[in-house]
Amino acid sequence: MVVVMKENATQAMVDAVSDHLLNVGFKVHSVVGVNRIILGAIGDKRGIDLREFEIMDGVHEVIRITEPYKLAGRTFHPEDTIVEVKGATFGGEYVPVIAGPCSVENEEQMFTIARQVKEAGAKVLRGGAFKPRTSPYAFQGLGVEGLKLLHAAGKEFNLPTVSEVMDVSQIEVMVEYVDILQIGARNMQNFFLLKELGRIKKPVLLKRGMAATIEELLMAAEYILDGGNYDLILCERGIRTFVTYTRNTLDLSAIPVTKKFSHLPIIADPSHGTGLRDKVAPMARAAVAAGADGVAVEVHHDPDKALSDGAQSLYPKQFARLMEELRMIAWAIGKKI
Amino acid sequence: MVVVMKENATQAMVDAVSDHLLNVGFKVHSVVGVNRIILGAIGDKRGIDLREFEIMDGVHEVIRITEPYKLAGRTFHPEDTIVEVKGATFGGEYVPVIAGPCSVENEEQMFTIARQVKEAGAKVLRGGAFKPRTSPYAFQGLGVEGLKLLHAAGKEFNLPTVSEVMDVSQIEVMVEYVDILQIGARNMQNFFLLKELGRIKKPVLLKRGMAATIEELLMAAEYILDGGNYDLILCERGIRTFVTYTRNTLDLSAIPVTKKFSHLPIIADPSHGTGLRDKVAPMARAAVAAGADGVAVEVHHDPDKALSDGAQSLYPKQFARLMEELRMIAWAIGKKI
Amino acid sequence: MVVVMKENATQAMVDAVSDHLLNVGFKVHSVVGVNRIILGAIGDKRGIDLREFEIMDGVHEVIRITEPYKLAGRTFHPEDTIVEVKGATFGGEYVPVIAGPCSVENEEQMFTIARQVKEAGAKVLRGGAFKPRTSPYAFQGLGVEGLKLLHAAGKEFNLPTVSEVMDVSQIEVMVEYVDILQIGARNMQNFFLLKELGRIKKPVLLKRGMAATIEELLMAAEYILDGGNYDLILCERGIRTFVTYTRNTLDLSAIPVTKKFSHLPIIADPSHGTGLRDKVAPMARAAVAAGADGVAVEVHHDPDKALSDGAQSLYPKQFARLMEELRMIAWAIGKKI
Amino acid sequence: MVVVMKENATQAMVDAVSDHLLNVGFKVHSVVGVNRIILGAIGDKRGIDLREFEIMDGVHEVIRITEPYKLAGRTFHPEDTIVEVKGATFGGEYVPVIAGPCSVENEEQMFTIARQVKEAGAKVLRGGAFKPRTSPYAFQGLGVEGLKLLHAAGKEFNLPTVSEVMDVSQIEVMVEYVDILQIGARNMQNFFLLKELGRIKKPVLLKRGMAATIEELLMAAEYILDGGNYDLILCERGIRTFVTYTRNTLDLSAIPVTKKFSHLPIIADPSHGTGLRDKVAPMARAAVAAGADGVAVEVHHDPDKALSDGAQSLYPKQFARLMEELRMIAWAIGKKI
Repeated sequence: MVVVMKENATQAMVDAVSDHLLNVGFKVHSVVGVNRIILGAIGDKRGIDLREFEIMDGVHEVIRITEPYKLAGRTFHPEDTIVEVKGATFGGEYVPVIAGPCSVENEEQMFTIARQVKEAGAKVLRGGAFKPRTSPYAFQGLGVEGLKLLHAAGKEFNLPTVSEVMDVSQIEVMVEYVDILQIGARNMQNFFLLKELGRIKKPVLLKRGMAATIEELLMAAEYILDGGNYDLILCERGIRTFVTYTRNTLDLSAIPVTKKFSHLPIIADPSHGTGLRDKVAPMARAAVAAGADGVAVEVHHDPDKALSDGAQSLYPKQFARLMEELRMIAWAIGKKI
Repeated sequence: MVVVMKENATQAMVDAVSDHLLNVGFKVHSVVGVNRIILGAIGDKRGIDLREFEIMDGVHEVIRITEPYKLAGRTFHPEDTIVEVKGATFGGEYVPVIAGPCSVENEEQMFTIARQVKEAGAKVLRGGAFKPRTSPYAFQGLGVEGLKLLHAAGKEFNLPTVSEVMDVSQIEVMVEYVDILQIGARNMQNFFLLKELGRIKKPVLLKRGMAATIEELLMAAEYILDGGNYDLILCERGIRTFVTYTRNTLDLSAIPVTKKFSHLPIIADPSHGTGLRDKVAPMARAAVAAGADGVAVEVHHDPDKALSDGAQSLYPKQFARLMEELRMIAWAIGKKI
Repeated sequence: MVVVMKENATQAMVDAVSDHLLNVGFKVHSVVGVNRIILGAIGDKRGIDLREFEIMDGVHEVIRITEPYKLAGRTFHPEDTIVEVKGATFGGEYVPVIAGPCSVENEEQMFTIARQVKEAGAKVLRGGAFKPRTSPYAFQGLGVEGLKLLHAAGKEFNLPTVSEVMDVSQIEVMVEYVDILQIGARNMQNFFLLKELGRIKKPVLLKRGMAATIEELLMAAEYILDGGNYDLILCERGIRTFVTYTRNTLDLSAIPVTKKFSHLPIIADPSHGTGLRDKVAPMARAAVAAGADGVAVEVHHDPDKALSDGAQSLYPKQFARLMEELRMIAWAIGKKI
Repeated sequence: MVVVMKENATQAMVDAVSDHLLNVGFKVHSVVGVNRIILGAIGDKRGIDLREFEIMDGVHEVIRITEPYKLAGRTFHPEDTIVEVKGATFGGEYVPVIAGPCSVENEEQMFTIARQVKEAGAKVLRGGAFKPRTSPYAFQGLGVEGLKLLHAAGKEFNLPTVSEVMDVSQIEVMVEYVDILQIGARNMQNFFLLKELGRIKKPVLLKRGMAATIEELLMAAEYILDGGNYDLILCERGIRTFVTYTRNTLDLSAIPVTKKFSHLPIIADPSHGTGLRDKVAPMARAAVAAGADGVAVEVHHDPDKALSDGAQSLYPKQFARLMEELRMIAWAIGKKI
């Protein structure tokens, strides 16, 4: 930590800050500049609230040096983490595609779509059973029944599965039926849930919150890693900006940025990131071109009748074509789908 | 709902949209404009996803007419809701001030601060026992022990209490010890938690998420109201914008806007909204001047030693002075503190 | 400037950065921490692009210590600047109110409104003659004719005047007819215009751009101050956020923040900041409560027929009432309208 | 335009709105819904301020139907516009790459870089001569001397040139030396400048402002088109969001969205969009994958000594490699570089 004193800070003020730094366990090293004194606080304290120092008399600014995360960062874990789930590997030279409907609706729907995405080359099958819906009046998912259908379709077509867990109470049943447990954007800072998912033995897919910085995403990851679960995949799915013509603004720069700071794989979700079908394919291609470790896409064999998110679901034909494009783009940057 | 067709939409496209509207239960009324056809969809369907129509051929835009919330809106509940909690009334001519430490730390701290805020005129005592912390390495709160101390201090100084509930599993104990259950910004769309809080018989304080629109805040409120709990207070606590010199950007316009759309009382939290002590008083004053139904402020008798959020906590003396200013500002707009 | 090296930076990398710092004129002081080396760069260099160092091998982060502005900051100019314009003083204990129509439309309109706002207590008369309109098809203002009418009305009612200058070519005529030249939000970084306004002898009102940080606002101010013009008033008028129910989000925290960093007076414009009449009064009150050095409000005697921005203009009666409220709020915080 | 009345609007309120609509020239068609009356206003009025109606008694919401732009939209110009500049074609099957230094610095620099980008396959040469700099203390560009050097380098290597125009006073000399005149993000709503550029006979490259919606971008385009200049290329270069690890957030969804609404070509600028060299290549690839009609990239043969933006400039070798990748990605989606 570096504390920058104001130009007119008195010696007494400098001393007070210095004492407070020593008190909380730092060593202090002062640098006397042209106009200001800078105090370098040496020591590895991750729990400190910088603002404690910011409000002291004579302080101009306080700057964190050490990242607040440890397990999620590259400093002590420089090489890429590769998460392997029944043949799909996230984080290496492959770029697995996750596909399937927004919600599991019934057996026929689930099996039809599973077959189609498998044929087109998807490596993981998705499907929501517990749905976080903005409106209490909207379809809330089939629950455990949905998990069973997803599980059956995954088994039939030899695809690992992913589905969202909304509450601690669902973890047990999720672990039974699903291969990857997804934490939705709205729950990225549900610390209770994160802690519990740190204790399970199944991979977790953690979606970035709509207003979350990369640092906050990595701190949320830290909760899971700290519990001992290292099979963790991050996901960029759009942030909230002043832009309204897409549901969210897919922040693809987050991909190279996150990969710089963290060893964890990061994929992109252009379906939720844009919210409209005709924007999904361009942004899926862009994600792979930007270096994403995977892509998650909603596909529905009959989107007009989908119980949720039909508008952002690709038709199977569109998906098959997208897979062709993604293969070539991955190849252009030395990767494989 | 209004569906605006493209200028070059064919009759077949118009018919397809019209049929789809009829299918989901609307009556359809078409308006032929200079360049376009507009389809008015008549009927009260709150669960519909507009994007289903947006992606149909020939459709230019789809516009929702009915608000997606019903219970939270003024349409069927035009008069202001007043929430009364042991002498503090939110939503009428009074502007109660909620004050106390960020976290409950120990008995002495809690009783000292309770006494001071009571003397200065606070009407509700706050104190966190379960703390949602960005970092797993930071102080996570005293838990039930904290609730008991808060309860005891409230009893001693005859102040109702408010504290944050983070998970469904805490509700039972919270209801026992606390007068108002607070839902934090990060949990605004934890629908599981919202549903459960709709079933309790205690007032709820629902904080706006950092990236939540007013509509989403009211939809979250709808989950609670739909469960039968009408003792609901909303809270503006800052949104995430490109601005970084404050922790969040306190969106005070949200106060008159929310009051226009909803009958629920709405208060402001300038402590979390700004994150720095010297900005708290100006923004608390501004909130009351803008018409807030209450203000929540963090106060600590020894902020430098606070276990959390010391930097945004007022000294008791600052708080007492702020109370004086708020009294005059409330009076200037025909209200009372 | 402080350069934080990566934990695994080699000595050669540290040396390279150190050499580059010396090359551009800094003295270098290194602090060896637990895991990292930090280089303190001592010297007052305001033109440097931090990113030059950020991209060097082994560099973790580069942190600016000295603010990039000099004349606008408090460091070398700690006391408040007071700008006095024919009896209206911005920056001291008074909170002058600027009022008038969005656009000057005709003599009757201008004189009617001038009389009404004068009677209610406004200290400066506003009126647009050159209008920056989003649409080329919208009313573009009366031009010089408008300036003459504004000038005449100001003279008649003994009010100094303010109007927006859009281009360097208008400065000469503006200086002749207007007391304060306003730079609109869209022109905040029109550096050509800023430079020229640094050379005139009349006060300037500089509006914050919709996406401008406070630092950028102060850097824009720096262009004007650097030209020798110190009669400068800043104005918060709303930023662009994800919120859409108001035209912009009035960022009132910017007022205490700017006053901390700069000696320049700062006022608020709740008319443009909200864009809707019924939000103007609450936010004007909030601005004064937050410590604004003035408020600018659009007033029209017949808003339904206004040629621009009628929707956000107060009726004269509303304005008179607002003035009453502002007087009490100012008094509550030790100021006068 | 559609005016949605409140559920409790009286007939008198409906009549007042209806009359006002008729007064400004609309025909009115009313739709009686279950709970509300909706007034369809028929007629093509682009200058109207919707808020005029929004503030009338009994009005719930006013919705624009006709886009406010006419010339920039697809409605009356469905086919793509192709802008051809000395062999570089924007808007068709080709994806030309614009490359060169941020600022023209001297003859050797300009010729060295021009040769390198030409060899790698760039189709247009860029170089800034008039520089909009946040700080008045930073390098402001070589001015006309810079334009001459750019012109000479373009001639030598048979590359058309592009450079930024900051003020109306520079247009004449720009037209003499430069093939494409660029309007910077900060000037996107400098309506004076836009109008003048509508009158010239050279292509214009219009950059999206940091806080501009697509609608505002197209309205700015409308100013130029309305003047008669149809050789117009749009450019996405990053928006301002809460994200700070990149200079701006490159909003690649804007590419498919803009192409849906407008016939104008749109390119992307990942150098300004990210601000850091190691993010430029991933985002340039992503832009082409998303369907951009071109890419603008800063290249410098010695970035560490660049007078501006060295940190976001590619080394020539990186640029050459990027060109290889872009060729394959373009090919993957049926285009050519």
